[in-house]
Amino acid sequence: MGKITSSISSYEGKPIRCKAAICRKAGEALVIEEIYVDPPQAYEVRIKILCTSLCHTDLSFLKLDDGPHVRFPRILGHEAVGVVESIGEHVDAFKEGDVVLPVFHPHCEECRDCKSSKSNWCTRFAEDFLSNTRRYGMTSRFKDSSGENIHHFLFVSSFSEYTVVDIAHLVKISQEIPVDKATLLSCGVSTGIGAAWKVADLEEGSTIAVFGLGAVGLAVAEGARVRGAAKIIGVDINPDKFELGRKFGITDFVNPSLCGEKKISEVVKEMTEGGVDYSFVCVGLNSSISEAFISTRTGIGKTVVLGIDKYLAPASLDSFDIFRGKSVCGGLFGGLKPKLDIPILVDHYLKKELNLDSFITHELKFEEINEAFDLLEQGKSLRCILWMDK
Amino acid sequence: MGKITSSISSYEGKPIRCKAAICRKAGEALVIEEIYVDPPQAYEVRIKILCTSLCHTDLSFLKLDDGPHVRFPRILGHEAVGVVESIGEHVDAFKEGDVVLPVFHPHCEECRDCKSSKSNWCTRFAEDFLSNTRRYGMTSRFKDSSGENIHHFLFVSSFSEYTVVDIAHLVKISQEIPVDKATLLSCGVSTGIGAAWKVADLEEGSTIAVFGLGAVGLAVAEGARVRGAAKIIGVDINPDKFELGRKFGITDFVNPSLCGEKKISEVVKEMTEGGVDYSFVCVGLNSSISEAFISTRTGIGKTVVLGIDKYLAPASLDSFDIFRGKSVCGGLFGGLKPKLDIPILVDHYLKKELNLDSFITHELKFEEINEAFDLLEQGKSLRCILWMDK
Repeated sequence: MGKITSSISSYEGKPIRCKAAICRKAGEALVIEEIYVDPPQAYEVRIKILCTSLCHTDLSFLKLDDGPHVRFPRILGHEAVGVVESIGEHVDAFKEGDVVLPVFHPHCEECRDCKSSKSNWCTRFAEDFLSNTRRYGMTSRFKDSSGENIHHFLFVSSFSEYTVVDIAHLVKISQEIPVDKATLLSCGVSTGIGAAWKVADLEEGSTIAVFGLGAVGLAVAEGARVRGAAKIIGVDINPDKFELGRKFGITDFVNPSLCGEKKISEVVKEMTEGGVDYSFVCVGLNSSISEAFISTRTGIGKTVVLGIDKYLAPASLDSFDIFRGKSVCGGLFGGLKPKLDIPILVDHYLKKELNLDSFITHELKFEEINEAFDLLEQGKSLRCILWMDK
Repeated sequence: MGKITSSISSYEGKPIRCKAAICRKAGEALVIEEIYVDPPQAYEVRIKILCTSLCHTDLSFLKLDDGPHVRFPRILGHEAVGVVESIGEHVDAFKEGDVVLPVFHPHCEECRDCKSSKSNWCTRFAEDFLSNTRRYGMTSRFKDSSGENIHHFLFVSSFSEYTVVDIAHLVKISQEIPVDKATLLSCGVSTGIGAAWKVADLEEGSTIAVFGLGAVGLAVAEGARVRGAAKIIGVDINPDKFELGRKFGITDFVNPSLCGEKKISEVVKEMTEGGVDYSFVCVGLNSSISEAFISTRTGIGKTVVLGIDKYLAPASLDSFDIFRGKSVCGGLFGGLKPKLDIPILVDHYLKKELNLDSFITHELKFEEINEAFDLLEQGKSLRCILWMDK
């Protein structure tokens, strides 16, 4: 399972007709339709998707019906592995047949920030990762059967048999890793592991609290487990997450629904003699940023923000606590530089250091995508792999 | 000047009668009185102050008339160099005649945080650095002529010919550095340089903005200059600070009073193609934390908070900016571990890498201390050295 068996098509320079799951209206079931995928332009690659998985961001954007970056119809999906079908002009780093991982977060490797060891925010390309207008403007490489543009999403749009991806958003990976495991590294799992390893750079014996035990939160735990954290506290209102969490190293569990009069931060502080060394916000609630911050230890506590409230309310933090040494930072894509760091994560998996397998709770055919969304929304699946050719 | 010429007294085990500047009431001029300084108890050292300097914190606490840590009468002063007169029980690291620097910020070297490379918040001792109750309770090592206790301040109380200091607050330094230059390293200047070197760990070619050009802010600039920062923007409402700032590497100046409709952050962003890599808040205004944060570059910008609003209002920060990679952290004592890092700063000075000399704008006799406070309050002095024996 997960081996690359598809032969590469020879549609070079021509549109490819294939199936895609189209999001035509916010909140409605996706519709499997035949579409046309244009050949790649300069600095682009057209890839055949082998498998894709669903991330909560897909669900959030499926439901989002207004805002500056909401356009219909569009093709969601941003966790996937594919194989290069053809390349556009000025593409040197990829060739037909390469196994590649598309990533929403760009890495041009040339701008000042890509060259800095302290940033993974590619200033050349990252600003429009939600709008995708830099590359596509109001056009698209996707057309439906009536010739209408179907919009891109997060520069990936993997809910399609074929997609076109900017080379800044593409990482070549080893063929040794099963593609379904590699798919996980396209977004959520890399974000969590990167947050633990690169953003927090947490050390053996440290204590952490993870707010929200979806795939990102559990990946933070997994990263902390591998680093030898002494205490990994999972915070989630779903008690089923604790048993699941144990597979990724979670040692203690706090259910906010059962804290009574106490705040989560009080409970966490009692469990850790004054607070955890690191806390990770893996839910999209600003109130969690505040609780996570309070939960950390005076002087050393670092809060890593991996989830964002859709209303973008400001975070309110105790300035005296900041002054005395607590810090807050972001962890978009886990602080990772995709082309540099994803191959490293692949390597850790191949050395059997990382548990990726347990993230895959379900596998379905691509055509069953709406069922996969239901599983995700009901909290039943962690990651559901959708196979394109099964 | 600044050489150690005093002979050590032999009052070991007995109180010493000497002069001190007493703060008897908030906002009033200090009164030079004869006091008695008790011999050091266990883990304490009695030192003869050679020189002391004034820091804005002394001025703030001179004026503060209420709050949990305000007690009268007390002896202010926390930047100084002294020589050990006698030691209490269980003191192994210091002996009579050692040249020492007292520091408000403790470093026990034994607690979990002192042993961590990521923290300088000594959890064993730091919590009461304002109240001083851990060591002294409601008593004191100082008595006035009527036998009344005179309270300690920041564990140092250097506005006295003799003082008693906990060994966790004492650093032995080389006798090669002139004591007036060493005095600067007792608080403000170390804080600024540490913030640039240790907290921000800023690299060659980086851009920074410093909000508030007192000694701490100028020391940040000096630290950035030595590291090879490309642009060092000073922000202050006092235009005289710019000429002064040039001595410490400030390349550009923003006067908030002259920004018109524009916010400081807009001006800084225009000057730096989107924001500075690092901003440093060296004033005690929470609004500056917000402006400093906005002034930094998306993805990489780090805001270091070195000043604290006396009303301790919460800091309000854009959570989406945090999510995308901006960070905020504190810089109490510049992230330095006193016993480990102050000798390193001394060494940099002796190698002529650090400009400490320009911080000393005035020198007065100890008895002229109220004049020194006037100079500080009027913004005329950066650091005024008070000599005890002149």
